[in-house]
Amino acid sequence: MTNPVLVEATRGNFAECLYRGAFAIVDANGRVVSNQGDIERPIFPRSAIKVFQSIPLVETGAADQFGLSDADLSLACASHSGESGHAVRAEAMLASAGLDDSHLECGCHWPLDFPVAIDLAKTGKNPTPLHNNCSGKHAGFLCTAVHEKDVLKGYVGSDHPVQVRARQVIEDLTATQLGADVCGTDGCSIPTYAAPLRAFAYGFAKLVTGKDVDADRARAGQRLIAACMAHPWEMSGTKRACLRLMEAAPGRVFAKTGADGVYCGVIPELGLGFALKIDDGATRAAEALAAAVIARALRESDPAIAETYDRLSTTVLKNWEKVETGIVRPLLSQ
Amino acid sequence: MTNPVLVEATRGNFAECLYRGAFAIVDANGRVVSNQGDIERPIFPRSAIKVFQSIPLVETGAADQFGLSDADLSLACASHSGESGHAVRAEAMLASAGLDDSHLECGCHWPLDFPVAIDLAKTGKNPTPLHNNCSGKHAGFLCTAVHEKDVLKGYVGSDHPVQVRARQVIEDLTATQLGADVCGTDGCSIPTYAAPLRAFAYGFAKLVTGKDVDADRARAGQRLIAACMAHPWEMSGTKRACLRLMEAAPGRVFAKTGADGVYCGVIPELGLGFALKIDDGATRAAEALAAAVIARALRESDPAIAETYDRLSTTVLKNWEKVETGIVRPLLSQ
Repeated sequence: MTNPVLVEATRGNFAECLYRGAFAIVDANGRVVSNQGDIERPIFPRSAIKVFQSIPLVETGAADQFGLSDADLSLACASHSGESGHAVRAEAMLASAGLDDSHLECGCHWPLDFPVAIDLAKTGKNPTPLHNNCSGKHAGFLCTAVHEKDVLKGYVGSDHPVQVRARQVIEDLTATQLGADVCGTDGCSIPTYAAPLRAFAYGFAKLVTGKDVDADRARAGQRLIAACMAHPWEMSGTKRACLRLMEAAPGRVFAKTGADGVYCGVIPELGLGFALKIDDGATRAAEALAAAVIARALRESDPAIAETYDRLSTTVLKNWEKVETGIVRPLLSQ
Repeated sequence: MTNPVLVEATRGNFAECLYRGAFAIVDANGRVVSNQGDIERPIFPRSAIKVFQSIPLVETGAADQFGLSDADLSLACASHSGESGHAVRAEAMLASAGLDDSHLECGCHWPLDFPVAIDLAKTGKNPTPLHNNCSGKHAGFLCTAVHEKDVLKGYVGSDHPVQVRARQVIEDLTATQLGADVCGTDGCSIPTYAAPLRAFAYGFAKLVTGKDVDADRARAGQRLIAACMAHPWEMSGTKRACLRLMEAAPGRVFAKTGADGVYCGVIPELGLGFALKIDDGATRAAEALAAAVIARALRESDPAIAETYDRLSTTVLKNWEKVETGIVRPLLSQ
């Protein structure tokens, strides 16, 4: 099927950019509460399921052994902006396990957030692997590997115990089998597995309710989600969409971006998970749709907060001279 | 109609991002030689028609009065990367008319090319309006305004003589009427007018052949196109797609990007113009499609050079650790 246009960007009287995609809001029974588009097509969740990937860090006891704080756990679930506070925290997590950034295999890139990159360049410094948006997750992987006495080198490989544990958690939560046939390599070199969009929304609903999930696993996942909601800056960065989406209803909404147009999230009080994908991978459209999907999930139980998310779903576009040129807005069916 | 998927980005065994769009290859009789997708839907051409917008600079005699070189004319048609060579040249163009960067109304932004922005930040300097990717075009606008004795202030307004002349050229070449109803504001604050995709391809074919165009206008346009092909770096920048597309067949292909997924171009030896738009505005997809469209246009007359453009149309994607993760490739029908 051809996915519907779910977001548009206008200029003058025209829709200049059209964004097709799909979303699913799912409960812990696997019931699809609301959806548009093809939610059975396999997608790569990318960084939107870092919570799933970081569950072994808590489950194994590694987080407690190394005294990781809630802010650390949030960083372990982060696609952070590479601000100095993020890099320093990732370094401290590694140090707690007796490691440093030479152990990171995530690669090195300038901070993804442009103003942060410019600020770093102005200091005359170059980025280290600690600035990689995934450094917190990788620090968590390495803490787990130390705790489990795994060989550290090659921890990003799909056969390494760290990645096997992560895959098993994802399979459990999404009720899928994830073999080499659905495996891709992510930006930070770890495996990413394709599964139906619906399955990721279902996994988050299971995790946050604990339904059909091992109790320790559910506790671990809920601890991570709570840590992210309590410390959203550590999970994202200054002025980032994930931060805005979580600060708008503190402790009531978890929302996490993934590369190439993905978002996943949870509304804990409703026991609902959601997942969405913009076909072409556009971040600005995924952010608009995430706000609209959260608004939809909360519309009935809390119309006022739903309106807040409606407002977040629309962005006025301005050019370099601050002249308004158009808007980005969701186009969900009623 | 729903446009077809013309480009995909893969990861593992899956198409992770799908890019819909349309393209038209048109001759100077207005005959559509090849197309896919809806080529009658109005699109904003954005920077892809800077050649049209800069024709008055040559037509009025301003370029000759101020002794502008071919490299200057290429910069007047550029979305440049903001490298120091671009900024210096834009400044010199302004100086030739007795002006400086305080007259520019294009706004100020960090160089669009990320490595260039980082290099500028490392020097401790901030960008000036000369680094704006449109500064060459605006320098050309100002040269024309000085030559024509227009009031300079407000030259970006749709009613200012500079913009009226540009609009009249576009209307002439595209055989359209461009009123306020189809007017949007571009990133550099000048008006941009929506018209059918087909019309822009037709306009380039008319210009390069001179068919149904005033002889002076055709000469002016051909001079600009030749200047861009002779000095493609000035029209784009280091490692940019427009540079690659023009360097692959020196003097035989003109190709110019526009924001939000547009490309326009010309194959002078065939008398053909082309225009394309990716629905969602993705640059990487527009670049892949531009190469594929040029390959298609040249396939019959020069299969070897068509193969070169086929190669340019596919890009291997690598992550931060240089691991191959997928490819971007066009999916044109035969």
